[in-house]
Amino acid sequence: MHKELLEDIGEKELINRLRKFMPKNQASDDCALITTKNKNLLVNNDCLVENVHFSDTNICPKDLGWKAVVSNISDLLSSGSKKTIGITISLILPSKTEWVWVEELYKGINKALKKYGGIILGGDCTAGNQKTISITALGIQGELMLRRNACKPGEIILTTGIHGLSKLGFMIQNQINFDNDVSLKKRLIKNSIEHFCRPKIYPNFLTNLLKSRSNKRTKVGCTDSSDGLIQAVQDLAVASNCKAILNYEKIKKDKDWPKGDKWDEYYFFGGEDYELVFSLPKKWAKNLSKLDKNIIEIGCFIKGEPSIEFKDNKKNKLLNNTPFKHF
Amino acid sequence: MHKELLEDIGEKELINRLRKFMPKNQASDDCALITTKNKNLLVNNDCLVENVHFSDTNICPKDLGWKAVVSNISDLLSSGSKKTIGITISLILPSKTEWVWVEELYKGINKALKKYGGIILGGDCTAGNQKTISITALGIQGELMLRRNACKPGEIILTTGIHGLSKLGFMIQNQINFDNDVSLKKRLIKNSIEHFCRPKIYPNFLTNLLKSRSNKRTKVGCTDSSDGLIQAVQDLAVASNCKAILNYEKIKKDKDWPKGDKWDEYYFFGGEDYELVFSLPKKWAKNLSKLDKNIIEIGCFIKGEPSIEFKDNKKNKLLNNTPFKHF
Repeated sequence: MHKELLEDIGEKELINRLRKFMPKNQASDDCALITTKNKNLLVNNDCLVENVHFSDTNICPKDLGWKAVVSNISDLLSSGSKKTIGITISLILPSKTEWVWVEELYKGINKALKKYGGIILGGDCTAGNQKTISITALGIQGELMLRRNACKPGEIILTTGIHGLSKLGFMIQNQINFDNDVSLKKRLIKNSIEHFCRPKIYPNFLTNLLKSRSNKRTKVGCTDSSDGLIQAVQDLAVASNCKAILNYEKIKKDKDWPKGDKWDEYYFFGGEDYELVFSLPKKWAKNLSKLDKNIIEIGCFIKGEPSIEFKDNKKNKLLNNTPFKHF
Repeated sequence: MHKELLEDIGEKELINRLRKFMPKNQASDDCALITTKNKNLLVNNDCLVENVHFSDTNICPKDLGWKAVVSNISDLLSSGSKKTIGITISLILPSKTEWVWVEELYKGINKALKKYGGIILGGDCTAGNQKTISITALGIQGELMLRRNACKPGEIILTTGIHGLSKLGFMIQNQINFDNDVSLKKRLIKNSIEHFCRPKIYPNFLTNLLKSRSNKRTKVGCTDSSDGLIQAVQDLAVASNCKAILNYEKIKKDKDWPKGDKWDEYYFFGGEDYELVFSLPKKWAKNLSKLDKNIIEIGCFIKGEPSIEFKDNKKNKLLNNTPFKHF
């Protein structure tokens, strides 16, 4: 089969082809125009680099496009964005990249935008020796301001789902030998790959949060767990200046998730799960949990130096693990 | 001297240091909040890659930061942005990068923002094997919508300044042997390096355009010459579906610019000059030229297939040169 490389297509033709993925009224100028009447915007930027965040052996370009969009919308959502306006895409590609790779990437991008809302507003494409996808996403701030610094002592810490699956999916896709002593259930393997390659987010979260609100508060402490569950709780504790007490027993895992320290490490430090981690007053937390059965209570914030402790002292050795680092 | 590398600093500390360059209220969350009351926004994205757009031998990090901001604001300006709100910065850096390089880059970024307006809204920083700076800039749409597709037959083509200097500066900085037969004036060498390393833009352009307007038009054909003068005119001709006639004699060059085909090529195809290229009805063009003595009339648009011709037939061979390509 003839492989059509970017160096054969040339820059002008490449840009023309990419424009076909954009809405017609956005496709002619350098800048995109956004009409906003009396609305406050949220802006987020996230960057995926080949061999740092992904490789052609662990994720296909279509899934990568999907994931790049989802990771940005997850950040918007964790600030209380009620609607995604759109994204700009900055692509860096080696000239030996096949066109079909780019096409598949954009199909995945548009699939995620179709599912979660938003359009491609514009972008830039240039040559480089390492594939890179940098996305800037714009959303409209909803009524509830979700912020890292809005947690309060006395509040319940909650999360939208179970963790660790994406990390397991990553290890399976990379054929990393994660544990010789366990044989994983087929269902868990399938789910984990799905979580790593095609993560989901929860646009209904904000609606449920508003529905279950029992007071007039407009600020809620929240972030997402893209860098791991412990990192998310740590970020909330530091920004809100309070201490997190996690209840190991209450933190729900996949029903087939293996036991042991190693598997706890994958669970708490894995990252890329894109679940929301947040805190609410007791009554609000109770109302929300009734409305959304996937919500899990994992602990509470108390007064104290920004830090994390497990209620069960024996579990604190878990915190000695170090989170994922890029540098 | 001890060289402080990013791999010594670590990711958390790096992000903390970068946050110190941001306004305090923007520094805690993943997303930036933009307050816009009844305003339309322009969004632009531009990406600079090491060894494609720059190298440590031809530009210092402080100038690079300045230039990265300017190239984005130039795009906003060429769409009619009356005010830059801010930028998000997506940085990719090898772990062996020295901290002082990053610090200087941000100093240059903030110097340009201080000069032309706007703040750092947020960003992302990750490891990679090739330095990359991807900036997304947000501006407020002014009264005049400058668009590539708004040129009309009968209009005068104008530009805000002379071209080619940035290309010459690039060649000098890279010690490329551009011409054995000429010795350049010191003044021209200094100017060219200045144009390449610290390009300027014209925020007064919009004010003058409005002041000199003799009718009620709100749309003007315009782009910038970041990819070269000929490319800019070509983009206008294609988007507006008309033919450009350029008047070689009228196209002003630096007073010490050497003569010859090679120097014409540098002039017309050089790129990175960040001058605005636009078209206006005769009367408006005349009024504007009176108001701003730097404005140069370079030709006109007529009915016809999207294309470019020189009035002086002998100059048309110039158009056989190919513009700069990334792939």
